[in-house]
Amino acid sequence: MTLLESAKKQILTPLMKRIAKEEAVPAAQLLKHIAEGKVVIPLNKNRRIKKPCGIGLGLRTKINANIGTSTDKSQMHYELKKLDVALEFGADAVMDLSVGGNLKLIRKEILKRSNVAVGTVPIYEIAVEANKKNDDFLKFNTSDILQILESQAKEGVDFFTVHAGVTKKSLGELKKHRRTIDIVSRGGAILAAWMIQSRKENPFYEDFDKVLDIAYKYDVTLSLGDGLRPGSILDATDKAQISELKILGELATRAKKRNVQVMIEGPGHVPLDQIKKNVQLEKKFCHQAPFYVLGPLVTDVAAGYDHISAAIGGALAASFGADFLCYVTPAEHLRHPSIEDVKEGMVASRISAHAADIVKNVKNAIDWDRKISLARKKRDWKEQIKLSIDKNKAKVYRASSKPHSFDVCTMCGKYCSIKLMERCMH
Amino acid sequence: MTLLESAKKQILTPLMKRIAKEEAVPAAQLLKHIAEGKVVIPLNKNRRIKKPCGIGLGLRTKINANIGTSTDKSQMHYELKKLDVALEFGADAVMDLSVGGNLKLIRKEILKRSNVAVGTVPIYEIAVEANKKNDDFLKFNTSDILQILESQAKEGVDFFTVHAGVTKKSLGELKKHRRTIDIVSRGGAILAAWMIQSRKENPFYEDFDKVLDIAYKYDVTLSLGDGLRPGSILDATDKAQISELKILGELATRAKKRNVQVMIEGPGHVPLDQIKKNVQLEKKFCHQAPFYVLGPLVTDVAAGYDHISAAIGGALAASFGADFLCYVTPAEHLRHPSIEDVKEGMVASRISAHAADIVKNVKNAIDWDRKISLARKKRDWKEQIKLSIDKNKAKVYRASSKPHSFDVCTMCGKYCSIKLMERCMH
Repeated sequence: MTLLESAKKQILTPLMKRIAKEEAVPAAQLLKHIAEGKVVIPLNKNRRIKKPCGIGLGLRTKINANIGTSTDKSQMHYELKKLDVALEFGADAVMDLSVGGNLKLIRKEILKRSNVAVGTVPIYEIAVEANKKNDDFLKFNTSDILQILESQAKEGVDFFTVHAGVTKKSLGELKKHRRTIDIVSRGGAILAAWMIQSRKENPFYEDFDKVLDIAYKYDVTLSLGDGLRPGSILDATDKAQISELKILGELATRAKKRNVQVMIEGPGHVPLDQIKKNVQLEKKFCHQAPFYVLGPLVTDVAAGYDHISAAIGGALAASFGADFLCYVTPAEHLRHPSIEDVKEGMVASRISAHAADIVKNVKNAIDWDRKISLARKKRDWKEQIKLSIDKNKAKVYRASSKPHSFDVCTMCGKYCSIKLMERCMH
Repeated sequence: MTLLESAKKQILTPLMKRIAKEEAVPAAQLLKHIAEGKVVIPLNKNRRIKKPCGIGLGLRTKINANIGTSTDKSQMHYELKKLDVALEFGADAVMDLSVGGNLKLIRKEILKRSNVAVGTVPIYEIAVEANKKNDDFLKFNTSDILQILESQAKEGVDFFTVHAGVTKKSLGELKKHRRTIDIVSRGGAILAAWMIQSRKENPFYEDFDKVLDIAYKYDVTLSLGDGLRPGSILDATDKAQISELKILGELATRAKKRNVQVMIEGPGHVPLDQIKKNVQLEKKFCHQAPFYVLGPLVTDVAAGYDHISAAIGGALAASFGADFLCYVTPAEHLRHPSIEDVKEGMVASRISAHAADIVKNVKNAIDWDRKISLARKKRDWKEQIKLSIDKNKAKVYRASSKPHSFDVCTMCGKYCSIKLMERCMH
């Protein structure tokens, strides 16, 4: 039985109990939300991990960190270090997006080393294998696809991104209503190119039932990818994007009927005033399936600082109901991320997620702010550092600039407002 | 005649014409907004600068960078370097918040070197002088205050922050409804302490007409400070804050009647779901005077990354109508900022301001996004770097990670979605 199947049968599994306890929500409510497809817990039935997580309605906003090699940067050990950093800074899930080096080996090591759910984009391995065999990464067929899906599922991958919504119909909208930048999703582009070249329908869409068979067999959660997500704020919420979103909604319903957990991926690049609408449309068309957003970036001009552009959009999206934030690093649009980029991306996403959780009324979220504010009031620096989102940076900053008076900081020194008020308000 | 006086008399000055042209707004509209107090152009009548700026309705969101010494860090040359960096990264105004070293000399150098408007918080010099003379920074009287205001105005300071809203009434609310952290404004705390100790009313409030006399004489813009701004999200939008805001609204009306330009300062620490309300309340109680916000930070836990917490809140505030963002650096709550902190704070604020300008329909704001997106589509790296918010960082990132194929980046390498679509969409 898959987790969704259990939930539909009102069977409370130990995993559900555990997540309910960790999130401080009633187990019955969690069970109901899983059964309704409003919460997913990505966990392959072949895998045991220390930190599974629930994603969706009423739960803490979760963060995914993308790692993995590229064709230009393919050192496995470097990617494993990124994994460690992502986990250290609180990633709730990681995706292995490798397209360079020995994909199977890298995935095996990541699956072994990660104590959180691991996702992949199987079309990458499909393309890389096609390139190896046929010297053409678009030369693959449905049987190649299903074989890779089965092998990755067997290895224990917890969730798959499948770009099943890039169909003749949604691509038609893209061709009719041209964009500033057509397609910026790597998986989406591979499938669109394959479809245009072969004049066939998207095989993930055409054979979605077979995809579901495999997902069901291993209890892999499907993350329905937005291959047509906007890559510029000028393209946000356009016909192609919405056409694809509606298709994802239909596919989500089919997945849930087959007892396969499903979440929906979202943009991308979205101006501030369209973020709420994007979340609402996803919830509407996809029947409240968990929403997994990449960013959104609120401007296209912040290369080198896209983690900040994404932090703005992500905080807003999550506050309106997005459930899962894919981190964006400062390297976005410029290079394959470094270890430092991974850290910066993780911290920015955690700020977003936490800021949203405060207003989403996530149980106990604001306690963290209360504790650090009380430590600030007392000028208890040890405690403030301990409670900071990046203890080490807070410690280094504090140590780099020693005040004459131990209980203040070098910003205000003698004129510390908190100290002054303590003296005269009591 | 002050600028506001000219505007009320329907006299279009060269400064107004110039700002209207730069902002691509009709001069008549700008004139009307200045006359109504919805736009200010801070510029002391004794000062000539290369880049004066308009702040308020219909204009690009502006950014202020705080610099200045502290009692623990008082090297003038270091602060002047910060000034250069702030200007290089696009500060529209700077505030000299010095409280350490030779204040007069530092201010003189900053006024000389800055090509943008310079603001101060005169209560700092008042306190520092009191401390020097009487060994007690709270030992000053109204005549000391007016003397410092006059001398700073004469030197050419373009705008003053005065915490005239910290009154017996608003402090009474603070005492009645206790907070997590009482007062976090340095100027607010000095005045509150002075009032509590002397049992007198706030001299800036009591003698507001005399403050206006000086401001009028030199055409100094008043920035009515929020001495009671919340210093924790738990204290946001509370009785003390709103009581002070209403007082600031009354004072703003008085200033405008006396032909003194005025803007209003705002929080601070505000959770995501209260930011819109905060902007609306300011616009309502202060009759649409320009709103100058510090952050707001959307969580208290991000010490070391408060520029990101502020970027989230600032973008949102500006999108709802805040006009002027005071940058927050990563050093906030930890130390006196370094030069690198100033740069990081500036870039984060610019991302916020620009993201907001796109949705505020600021003339031509989105053109920047269009241009960089088109360069991205063409994989024109020179152009992308040229258009990036921090050209140097974009350049360094790009150079640090060379792809095999010159026209892609090392993230996707061979599998660049944009390149792939170019091949098959045409």
